[in-house]
Amino acid sequence: MAYHPLSVDLVAGYLRSTPVWRRPLGESSDLEVSDLADGNVNLVYRVRAPAVGTSVIVKQALPYARSVGESFPMPLSRSRLEFRILQVERRLARAHVPRVYHYDGGMHVLVMEDLRHHRVLRGELLRQADLPALGRHMGRFLASTLFFTSDLAMDPGEKKRWVKRFLNPHLCRVTEDLVFTEPFVDHPHNHWNPLIDDVVVAIRRDRRLQAEIADLKWRFMSRAEALIHGDLHTGSIMVTADDTRVIDPEFGFYGPMGFDVGALLGNLALAYLAQPGHAPSAESAREYRAWIAETMCVIWQEFAERFTAYWQDAGGVWPDPFCALLLRRVFEDALGFAGVKMMRRIIGLAHVADLDTIADLTIRAGVERAALHLAREWVLGRREVDGMDQVLATLRQAGRAVTADAIGRG
Amino acid sequence: MAYHPLSVDLVAGYLRSTPVWRRPLGESSDLEVSDLADGNVNLVYRVRAPAVGTSVIVKQALPYARSVGESFPMPLSRSRLEFRILQVERRLARAHVPRVYHYDGGMHVLVMEDLRHHRVLRGELLRQADLPALGRHMGRFLASTLFFTSDLAMDPGEKKRWVKRFLNPHLCRVTEDLVFTEPFVDHPHNHWNPLIDDVVVAIRRDRRLQAEIADLKWRFMSRAEALIHGDLHTGSIMVTADDTRVIDPEFGFYGPMGFDVGALLGNLALAYLAQPGHAPSAESAREYRAWIAETMCVIWQEFAERFTAYWQDAGGVWPDPFCALLLRRVFEDALGFAGVKMMRRIIGLAHVADLDTIADLTIRAGVERAALHLAREWVLGRREVDGMDQVLATLRQAGRAVTADAIGRG
Repeated sequence: MAYHPLSVDLVAGYLRSTPVWRRPLGESSDLEVSDLADGNVNLVYRVRAPAVGTSVIVKQALPYARSVGESFPMPLSRSRLEFRILQVERRLARAHVPRVYHYDGGMHVLVMEDLRHHRVLRGELLRQADLPALGRHMGRFLASTLFFTSDLAMDPGEKKRWVKRFLNPHLCRVTEDLVFTEPFVDHPHNHWNPLIDDVVVAIRRDRRLQAEIADLKWRFMSRAEALIHGDLHTGSIMVTADDTRVIDPEFGFYGPMGFDVGALLGNLALAYLAQPGHAPSAESAREYRAWIAETMCVIWQEFAERFTAYWQDAGGVWPDPFCALLLRRVFEDALGFAGVKMMRRIIGLAHVADLDTIADLTIRAGVERAALHLAREWVLGRREVDGMDQVLATLRQAGRAVTADAIGRG
Repeated sequence: MAYHPLSVDLVAGYLRSTPVWRRPLGESSDLEVSDLADGNVNLVYRVRAPAVGTSVIVKQALPYARSVGESFPMPLSRSRLEFRILQVERRLARAHVPRVYHYDGGMHVLVMEDLRHHRVLRGELLRQADLPALGRHMGRFLASTLFFTSDLAMDPGEKKRWVKRFLNPHLCRVTEDLVFTEPFVDHPHNHWNPLIDDVVVAIRRDRRLQAEIADLKWRFMSRAEALIHGDLHTGSIMVTADDTRVIDPEFGFYGPMGFDVGALLGNLALAYLAQPGHAPSAESAREYRAWIAETMCVIWQEFAERFTAYWQDAGGVWPDPFCALLLRRVFEDALGFAGVKMMRRIIGLAHVADLDTIADLTIRAGVERAALHLAREWVLGRREVDGMDQVLATLRQAGRAVTADAIGRG
């Protein structure tokens, strides 16, 4: 079928034309379509068959970023990459990746499992949801997807063919520009809370910081370590109390392992710092923060343990003593990437609800200042940090600054 | 033309069938062919036209490594990569790369400039040749080829297409195995001077060293920084007193910049240490060593200066403060790769004339012990080394051990 964007009216007819629609939706001819594309880059529809009570997600790429507009072109071919990466991730971390029923390369459509009982992690963290399995699940997802797509587990020739297969120049360029370049120079894409003008000026003048951010950009651009998700913030994770699924890997490519780990830790740190702007009480903010910090710890521990176990199972292809050394490097990279990602969410193009939905601009500025200070500390000090305990100590310290600030305003 | 290996008898006829042979060789029908393939992986012939006094080199890939035999298969397609890389290197460092007259993708033949007044650098270093321009030339070659094929100078999308274009899985595998893996485990490819058995055992038991060598292998396999030559030892460089040409880039691919710099420095260090085994007198060995050390220094200085100048000319695409940081990393990588390459030339498959032509096994063992000790020091200490002066101090110290040893035997 020649490519054309699907509207709500066209989705049901399109779906009936595909070979797979009966599998998840039964023989029902009565389909209900709703538009879920709120804030997304792509078209996203939910299609329900009320007669059988099942549903699917229909996700279609547009030739531009829907949330920005036609001025921000994005290649349709990203849907094929997303499909391929979902297949790989599902094979490696079945429990944490949605099922894909159908891919249509002509229409750039994915028909996928509807995670209708799941909610987006970012919002859940602001609602202080109880997610006891999140840390363990994400540690596992990271360990499986990163270890098994790397030279640690793959035949070296096959891995090189995968580097080629998963080359993603256009979407990498978006990350290079929006994450590593634009936020740190004068650029029309940038916007920020006017109460932190002074911090933005200080960041742009900080030559040591500029050098380290460029170093992280260089790493992002040149380190083909593993097939990374490439956009693993808390908006790419869907959760229930006991289930965790990673979606939207369209930014995936062969990049540094620490980029995925750092994206997750950095976005959790933002949720941690933002708690006083969302929690019903200081007490609940304190408790939920403690849980977020522990979850960050569990993510890293679970990741490192599984990674090490896979290493040992591989039986000496790579010498054991290198495992701890490599994990140490991934940790350093993760801290650096976490820092840059936190900064760009405050002073770049794409912000996050954690901060932007704090109505009181002064409280919001307090969170943002603390986050930018912490981010700088992580970027500059990442090579000297001695483990997750020390990272969490810096997070708690930044958190105390915010709490004092928020309470001072109350 | 269907692929078939060229013998001495077939070369002249083949050359007459190509569209370019008249350009370098004139209209002469009288061609003299000689076989130069001594010790090489490929077939290499010199074709002279005595009537006009000109000549060309005809280099043809075989489906295996000529010097090892049919048991060591090598893909014919490497000739196309070699041709493409020669084109890139010639565009970037015209003065230091031979001219290619013709490439025949069916026969896997390159017809190239005959560097008939040049000699292989490795041999010249053992003959103590006067090469005053070598350091400057090689610093320039490294700076141009590494800077301009990296993300520092290329459009990011174009660079990613080049990563794909120059993927070289088979020859990378040869390096991965022969340089980074086999020398450090029990493998039938390995051989060494029996007088250093104890050092070989010690190297294999050294867990810290194993971890760092694995780290360097990981860097080699995952860091797509620049289009590197991939085999830049002193046998890949042809010299006269005032001219320097880099040949044989068939191992080239997008890899870490430090690999080329390190290959060169490591092989010069071997030539330095081996001087007492070749020099006509202790005095001349001392003098030539001083010149080699200075040349190593000039290579790095010229490389770093040009690299920095290119960076500044690029006008702020990458922030200035990152330049020194990146050069520091390249330096650390170079020291590590130099160390591994020195080790593999002593305890792995492919040795070097610098060491293997020292007839007295005890003197040779002295050089090898000093080289292995120095190599270990560079691999383990590379992150703490404070510039080239300190590197040369460790080289001189290793050299004194050899001299004492050699004199002790004299």
